[in-house]
Amino acid sequence: MLDRIRVVMVNTSHAGNIGSAARAMKTMGLSSLWLVDPEDYPNGRAKADAMASGATDLLAEARVVATLDEALAGCVLVIGASARSRTVPWPWLDAERAAGTLLAQAQASGQDVAILFGRENSGLTNEELARCHFHTGIPANPEYPVLNVASAIQVICYELRRQWLAQQDRPVAATGNAEPQMQVESVRWDKPPATADDLERFFAHLEQTLLDLRFFVVDDPRQLLIRLRRLYLRARPDEVELRILRGVLAATQRAARSAGETPTRGD
Amino acid sequence: MLDRIRVVMVNTSHAGNIGSAARAMKTMGLSSLWLVDPEDYPNGRAKADAMASGATDLLAEARVVATLDEALAGCVLVIGASARSRTVPWPWLDAERAAGTLLAQAQASGQDVAILFGRENSGLTNEELARCHFHTGIPANPEYPVLNVASAIQVICYELRRQWLAQQDRPVAATGNAEPQMQVESVRWDKPPATADDLERFFAHLEQTLLDLRFFVVDDPRQLLIRLRRLYLRARPDEVELRILRGVLAATQRAARSAGETPTRGD
Repeated sequence: MLDRIRVVMVNTSHAGNIGSAARAMKTMGLSSLWLVDPEDYPNGRAKADAMASGATDLLAEARVVATLDEALAGCVLVIGASARSRTVPWPWLDAERAAGTLLAQAQASGQDVAILFGRENSGLTNEELARCHFHTGIPANPEYPVLNVASAIQVICYELRRQWLAQQDRPVAATGNAEPQMQVESVRWDKPPATADDLERFFAHLEQTLLDLRFFVVDDPRQLLIRLRRLYLRARPDEVELRILRGVLAATQRAARSAGETPTRGD
Repeated sequence: MLDRIRVVMVNTSHAGNIGSAARAMKTMGLSSLWLVDPEDYPNGRAKADAMASGATDLLAEARVVATLDEALAGCVLVIGASARSRTVPWPWLDAERAAGTLLAQAQASGQDVAILFGRENSGLTNEELARCHFHTGIPANPEYPVLNVASAIQVICYELRRQWLAQQDRPVAATGNAEPQMQVESVRWDKPPATADDLERFFAHLEQTLLDLRFFVVDDPRQLLIRLRRLYLRARPDEVELRILRGVLAATQRAARSAGETPTRGD
């Protein structure tokens, strides 16, 4: 179960932190580490190994990829760690609920889920945060909420293990009065959830369709797209729903293009 | 409350770990750090400061003492972190229960309580462990249970803060038995949610637009509309999101109608 939860570190500066993160993960039984465009890795491999201590195996198996797309391919749920308040508020889960939701989704879907951690100094970009279904954070001291990235990973992995172990302990309670978010997700869904890469293709299609409709003339396109992303990510469409939405977009494009051609034809 | 919980590091080897521990504590709102006979401190103060980052104040106030007796003076409860199984079994609490017990005792007594962390390599001695009311440990991967000492302190402090915050919340949470998904969205939203009647108008508009697109020819319209309803209801759009969606529908209708007119115009 815990091996279906990807820990994705985005553009990490210090290789030592990657090593510490690997150690933190292994102590809690997680194993799927993804490194998106790390600054100092594999160059700083020796530093990473030193910090990984007995978790160098996990480091050796870590996937180093160039883009977030690659790290999220096939994931049915994406949660991003964010300390910042954003201009467009995003669905938020504290660390405890985030861990519960990751577990529940990995369990229900049998597919991978991901938790993202950003740069040491600046976290995740707005664009990266807009790829997430939820944002999460560790409830920290407001006067000094600055956890080291490996410490944050340690806490999240601890929460995942704690809740996972609690599930093993009480197979009966799991059906009954589970956490609130479990109840939400425990409904037997009829279709598998859309993956992160399916969703990205949908968003690209949506944007192109709005361009075809010349929709952006009236509004700030970036703001508008962010709000639409947030809406659809919140709903977490299943495969059939996404297929319907894509169908509507295709029909809309046909209409928009044929409408666009009208004046030329009229000539 | 959290300032009455002493974190006692016994005979720590590396000053860097003391600094990391201070940072971990401060992020979770703890402040009482006691160092019993540290090997490399205050000699290694610079290393400690570097790792403490924004928690150097906490480090400056740390009490460096020669004996465990001094660090435990006045404490009404002592819990020792121990990874090892011991020859003489000892009352044991997992990290979650240990944190709860520390909080409860500090609260009930109005006095200090302590949690002990031992040497990086060998932990606490049998003699030191015998000073404790309880032993505790973080439920770790049996194949690699070796947390860095500062990471272990981070997790214990997180548990303390999590439970302490839950106590503050409880009287409030008792009144609001909100929907599960409401809790998820307890983030301060920038726009009011759309009302049920707004949503019905949107659904009617959506259906008409799909008719204009002649979308239903391909599929069972009832099934399809039900699935779209479910999707949008799940997302619970706010007013602005709904306005954007309505705008997209209106633009789509204009395109569909103008496309539909093409043949007639062409005549």
